[in-house]
Amino acid sequence: MSNTQATTVRPRRAVLQMPEYHPPLAGRDGLRLDFNENTLAPSPKIAEVLQRISTAGLTKYPEREPVERIVAAHFGLNADQVLLTNGVDEAIHLLCEAFLEPEDEALIAVPTFFMYEVYVAATGARTQGVQADASLQFPLAGILAAIHERTRLIAIASPNNPTGAVIRREDILAIARAAPQAVLLVDEAYYHFHGETMLQDIAAVPNLIVARTFSKAYGLANLRIGMLAGNPEVLRYVRKVGSPYNVNGIALECLQVALADEEYVRWYSEQVRAGREQMEKGLAALGVPYWPSHANFVLMNIGAKHKELVAAMRKRNVLVRDRSSDPGCDGCVRITIGIHEHVEQGLAALKASLEEIGWQAK
Amino acid sequence: MSNTQATTVRPRRAVLQMPEYHPPLAGRDGLRLDFNENTLAPSPKIAEVLQRISTAGLTKYPEREPVERIVAAHFGLNADQVLLTNGVDEAIHLLCEAFLEPEDEALIAVPTFFMYEVYVAATGARTQGVQADASLQFPLAGILAAIHERTRLIAIASPNNPTGAVIRREDILAIARAAPQAVLLVDEAYYHFHGETMLQDIAAVPNLIVARTFSKAYGLANLRIGMLAGNPEVLRYVRKVGSPYNVNGIALECLQVALADEEYVRWYSEQVRAGREQMEKGLAALGVPYWPSHANFVLMNIGAKHKELVAAMRKRNVLVRDRSSDPGCDGCVRITIGIHEHVEQGLAALKASLEEIGWQAK
Repeated sequence: MSNTQATTVRPRRAVLQMPEYHPPLAGRDGLRLDFNENTLAPSPKIAEVLQRISTAGLTKYPEREPVERIVAAHFGLNADQVLLTNGVDEAIHLLCEAFLEPEDEALIAVPTFFMYEVYVAATGARTQGVQADASLQFPLAGILAAIHERTRLIAIASPNNPTGAVIRREDILAIARAAPQAVLLVDEAYYHFHGETMLQDIAAVPNLIVARTFSKAYGLANLRIGMLAGNPEVLRYVRKVGSPYNVNGIALECLQVALADEEYVRWYSEQVRAGREQMEKGLAALGVPYWPSHANFVLMNIGAKHKELVAAMRKRNVLVRDRSSDPGCDGCVRITIGIHEHVEQGLAALKASLEEIGWQAK
Repeated sequence: MSNTQATTVRPRRAVLQMPEYHPPLAGRDGLRLDFNENTLAPSPKIAEVLQRISTAGLTKYPEREPVERIVAAHFGLNADQVLLTNGVDEAIHLLCEAFLEPEDEALIAVPTFFMYEVYVAATGARTQGVQADASLQFPLAGILAAIHERTRLIAIASPNNPTGAVIRREDILAIARAAPQAVLLVDEAYYHFHGETMLQDIAAVPNLIVARTFSKAYGLANLRIGMLAGNPEVLRYVRKVGSPYNVNGIALECLQVALADEEYVRWYSEQVRAGREQMEKGLAALGVPYWPSHANFVLMNIGAKHKELVAAMRKRNVLVRDRSSDPGCDGCVRITIGIHEHVEQGLAALKASLEEIGWQAK
């Protein structure tokens, strides 16, 4: 293969200018407190689903519609108000593709989930970021002031990643009213760790789209399944640009069982809420500044030694995520909150690592 | 939900103008000879994979890179020459998104797989279709004549769907030379039923991209896994517009086992080749005109009673696909070729159905 020729084809201008995202795609061994995954397992009933999957059935293209009906009913919605996607990644991708012309603008609070900017850039549209102040709370006034006629997408994660901050329902409704020409995506990936949702508002707010993932509380990141809920006409445009076979069949099977086991997801979410309190108390005791979180992670400010901390934690087989390059997050490290035992392990590794690197509270 | 408001947002112009694709997403009960799936099952070793999947592992984002290395090695390629995708659907989608500006043109032979046109339309680019003559052979001269400077994608399925026709290697190379500014996608979804591939040419032909699916011979349509192989720089642009977590973890596990079981896929492909001969002989005996096929399906010309035939087959629990609306395919029906037993069932149902609808050979 050493004789590979230089290619003669050029991509779209927007693709040349896109930022690249390089998350680890291999080798995440240890206690994974780096990607806000469920740290334990999905519902134990998922094991039964895997046991009863017939290999003969794997030959068949997946059938999304019956599962969309079940999911819609679970949330008290109609089937045409729900679109299942190959993770929320695909949901964001398709929303951008369906609604953003190159001359349009997308509006986000900064810092937030990186993929909004990536998929906006793929369309050639511009991302307008409104920086949060040092509190890392949602910059409502700045967002409202930044809306103009070319704003065609506003993406808000609530709880937000990596800050853990939330936005109030009335503020979301105010943004929706201020930008009727824009799709307002409220990404509720971390909903279960906070408990407030906009799902009940989608019928009345015709530009509101809610995203949910089954990768976090439900523990199914490996299967790639997410969901958009919103106005049927908006979703029809999103369906047009996507594949009818976007969600794999095993994910469709597992999703129904995971949704039905409400007790498990309630138990796991309670573990996280208790663990978050434990982590925040632990950080306070250590003198590490942090931002109060409504999600299954806590963002802490380590300062100049952030890289050393991540490396020291890794030596102890605990993975955490350096968020120092996020705007306004200089020196910050994010730690995922899981079940009690994993919070204990994370805190113990953190304490030992801070000692090892000679970190001092200010 | 009866009070759902009309939306205030408008999609991109290209999305408004896109054709819609409505394949059945539910209720395909019976002997499925309608979507060119494997009619039996994937490798029996897949059952072992499903048995050993740990539910705890489902919490983890899938890791694509180690599997891309294994797949590349299987095909004698480097890892940067391979991109795994969420089915070939996603591969086509990402290729169009990476390379087509709205002022560009994509070139296809007609009739062919419908999704090329769908994803080209999503970019706002124009699809230029070159109609095959009544032989339904690849219209080489027409394609070469249609290439111009704004031709930025040429998509060729070989074997082609729904015709079963193939294009020779030297003709593909001539097209690649004639359009160095275009990505030349050769979609080898049906490779195993024909046996000729362009994979060995990707290093020397810098605008050639080969697609393979694991939904056909390998029998894994339900898991959504496809692959692009080609120039590393071209694939780098495609990777940029896609998600790093596009392929689900169970598909990644199963793929490795399916690829390694070469004996199974060889056996299944031989069943299809023998079954295709049997089907073609059966059609000849019944006096039904058909096009000789290199794929796991045969296209036959029923004429005016095509819809009646599909309905009569369905009554006998055999699903076949009406292709009458494909350009140049008026009155045509496509039947999938599977294992011997299913070909027998298909032929018996066909014979009874033709009798029922009073079909007469011309």
